[in-house]
This record gives sequence, C-alpha cells and structure tokens, in this order.
Amino acid sequence: MAEAATKILEESLGETVLIKLRGNRKLRGKLEGFDLHMNLVLENAEDISNPDETVNLGRIIVRGDNVILISPPPR
Amino acid sequence: MAEAATKILEESLGETVLIKLRGNRKLRGKLEGFDLHMNLVLENAEDISNPDETVNLGRIIVRGDNVILISPPPR
Amino acid sequence: MAEAATKILEESLGETVLIKLRGNRKLRGKLEGFDLHMNLVLENAEDISNPDETVNLGRIIVRGDNVILISPPPR
Amino acid sequence: MAEAATKILEESLGETVLIKLRGNRKLRGKLEGFDLHMNLVLENAEDISNPDETVNLGRIIVRGDNVILISPPPR
Amino acid sequence: MAEAATKILEESLGETVLIKLRGNRKLRGKLEGFDLHMNLVLENAEDISNPDETVNLGRIIVRGDNVILISPPPR
Amino acid sequence: MAEAATKILEESLGETVLIKLRGNRKLRGKLEGFDLHMNLVLENAEDISNPDETVNLGRIIVRGDNVILISPPPR
Amino acid sequence: MAEAATKILEESLGETVLIKLRGNRKLRGKLEGFDLHMNLVLENAEDISNPDETVNLGRIIVRGDNVILISPPPR
Repeated sequence: MAEAATKILEESLGETVLIKLRGNRKLRGKLEGFDLHMNLVLENAEDISNPDETVNLGRIIVRGDNVILISPPPR
Repeated sequence: MAEAATKILEESLGETVLIKLRGNRKLRGKLEGFDLHMNLVLENAEDISNPDETVNLGRIIVRGDNVILISPPPR
Repeated sequence: MAEAATKILEESLGETVLIKLRGNRKLRGKLEGFDLHMNLVLENAEDISNPDETVNLGRIIVRGDNVILISPPPR
Repeated sequence: MAEAATKILEESLGETVLIKLRGNRKLRGKLEGFDLHMNLVLENAEDISNPDETVNLGRIIVRGDNVILISPPPR
Repeated sequence: MAEAATKILEESLGETVLIKLRGNRKLRGKLEGFDLHMNLVLENAEDISNPDETVNLGRIIVRGDNVILISPPPR
Repeated sequence: MAEAATKILEESLGETVLIKLRGNRKLRGKLEGFDLHMNLVLENAEDISNPDETVNLGRIIVRGDNVILISPPPR
Repeated sequence: MAEAATKILEESLGETVLIKLRGNRKLRGKLEGFDLHMNLVLENAEDISNPDETVNLGRIIVRGDNVILISPPPR
C-alpha cells in the first residue's frame, strides 16, 4: 500500500472513518486496525447504506477486496 | 491479514459470528477456524439470508473470497 | 487453507459433502480429493440446484474459484 | 492442483471429457493436455450448450479461469 | 507500474486529477499519494459522477482495483 | 501454460486462429505471438461477433484475461 | 507480456492506438508508455465509445486490468 495511504490510515486509528464498498454499501466506524490488503477492523460500525435506516454492526472485519474508498476524518 | 483482524478472529474462536457474503447471503455460526485468506470454518452454521426462514447448514467451510464482513460477538 | 478447514476436508474424504457454488449451483458427492485452492474431486456427484430434478454428474473436478461453501457430513 | 485432480486428468488423457464453463457454456472433447491452472486442450471439441444444436469446434485451448467443472469419463 | 505512468503520477502530486472508477463513478481531487497498485490518496476529493450534484468527500483513499482511468492535469 | 497448449500455439504461429472472448466477442486473425498468460498478438484480425457484419481490426493485442477459447486451424 | 506484444507496443510509442476496454468503452490516443500489466499512458486521448460524441480526455493513465484489445497503427 502507498506510504501515503498507510500514513493516513495510521493517523486515523481510533478515529471514525467512512467506507464505501462494492454493491453500494456504506459503512461508518472507528478504525481499529488495517493491513496492506486494506482489510479493516472497525469498532462501533454502522451500515449507513440506507439513509433512512442506520444498522448497528458492532465490531466488524471488512475484507479489503470489497473496498472502493476509505474516507478518514477531517484533519 | 491485519494483526488486528487475526487477534479478533482468535478471540472469537468458539464464539458465534455473523458473516456477510457476496450475493446478499448472511450466515451465523460458531467460529471453529480461519486462515489468512479469511477462509472460515463454522459449526452449527445457519443461513439467515431470508429473515423468514433460517436454514441449518451444520458444519461448513466458507471460502474467504466471498466474505464481505465478519462480525464477531460483542466483547 | 486453514488447518481447521484442511482437517475437516481430510476427515470428510470418502464421505458425502454438499457444495454451494457461485451462480446458485448446488452439488452433492463423495469427496475424493482436494487441494489448498479448494479444487475438489467428487465421486458420484449430483447437481441438486433444481430441487425437482437431480442431475447425475458422475466423477467431477470442481474448480475452487467457484466454491462458496463446503458442508461436510455431520459428525 | 490436487494430486487427486491431476491423477484423474492424467487418466483421462485421450478420453472424452465434459466441461462446464461460466456463462452456461458446456463443451465436450477428447482431453489432449492440461496444466495446473486447469487450462485444457481438447481435440474434436463440441459446444453442447444448446441441446438442440451441437457446434463443432475442432481442436481448442480452454483457459482455466472459465472452468467450473470437469467431468472425466466413467471408470 | 510503467515508468511512464509513475512519472506522470509523480508530476501530478499536489495537482488535481480526475479518476474514473468501475460502476460509472467519477472522482476529482488533489493527488497526495499513490502506489504501484494504483491505490490513490486524494485531498479535497469530490464525487462528480452525477453532473447535477457534486459530493464533497474530503480526504480519501481509493483502492486501485477499482480504477479505470486517471487523468492528470494538462501540462 | 500447459506444454500441450504451448505446443499448439507454437504450431499455429502464422496461421489463422479463432478466439472467443468474454462478453460474446469472437475474433479471427493470424497468430503472430502469445505468452504464458494467453496474451495474443493477431495480424489481420476481424471481429466476427456479429455474423452479419465483420469488422476489420488490423493488428491487435488481446489481453489473455478475456480469453475463453482459442481454436487453432485444423491439422 | 509476450515479446511479440512488447515489440508491437514499443514500435507504437508516439503513434495513435485504439483501445477497447471492458464495459464497451473505446479510447484512442497517442501511446506514451506501457508496462507488463498493460497499464497504458495515452496522450491526447479521446473517449470514442459513443460514435456521435467524442470526449477529449487529454493525457490519461489506463489501468491494464480493464483492457480487452489494443490496436496499434497500421504498419
């Protein structure tokens, strides 16, 4: 993974990130961990794909293959 | 796989996890094993894709390629 | 492949397993062999995708890429 | 590839095999060669996807990526 | 990645680039980083897929797998 | 690539081959080169996907990923 | 990449090439660079997918994964 990407993900540990996955799924959660395949661990994750209904997912592991975008918190 | 992900999966051994697969399939079962490709072994697995009809699958091996999310039990 | 998965597949050699493949295909057959990519060899395999019409396939090789789930026989 | 799969393919050299490919394509032909990616060489191959119209393909190379099932001849 | 591609991406650091992703998604943002898998880091990113509604995304990481085209700024 | 496949492709150099690609595309052309990923170079290539309209493509490089079948000329 | 393909791409540097991508996208542009994954750099690129509306893209990087065909200029 790009050093730039790693640096941002490291700075985002413990912070809330937004994730867009294939298939129009959107997630939000506190970043607890990641690896070079962009596998992610989120705490207090929520599925926010449907703007009218947020679904609590708790702690989750996201497989990197499905990730399109990761949006760290504003600096 | 991220150390964070491995750590969570190790802590989840023997516990019930929720799995979301591609193609809108959802599974629930006791985690018996896993590997770095997120191949999973579940005991007493159930297909809960259809909220009106839980299908018992018994012991299964899930190929990691199909995994989107793994949700370990609450701490 | 996870040691847990390998162990289950080894224990299942000579036993009937259920296989779910991408594209809603379901197979049943006696497991004769496997490898770390989840390529499988089944004996007396049947395509049971259509509940009203079981199709005999005889001995087959299944390419692991297409595998979603493998269900070994109950212990 | 699994030793079991290799063994079956080796035993099937010179014999007619059935191949199911992604996209509902079915082929039949005499197995002339194969490799560990399941790339196949078939002689006198026929496309039998349409039960009403067999299409002669002659000698073909099939890229393994597209293979779902290989069905060797009965023993 | 091609030296030619790397050279263009390096020259584009700090500049606005256009990105076309699979699934008809278009992004625009300042290129902050990249790697050999074409994973990208964008600052002040915008989703411009819908010409009638630009969505601010802030700083994002784009997984290279989804990239079709990258359009650096004119020289 | 299988030695059998390599051998056939080598014998087919300078000969007309038929190629079936994903997405129902069919090509015909004189094989000028190939590699172990089944990337192909064709001379005087034609897109014959539409039986009513052959499209001349001239010399082309075909990315192996898209290849389903290669049909060398009859021996 | 095949030596034959590399040779053609090298001869095509500075020349206009046609590119067919997955999803029925067609591009035309001057080839500035390429690598063994068929990542391409095009100058003065145009999206010619729609015969009625050519879209100027300027200089672009095309990710090789999406390439189906590359058509170099006639010799």
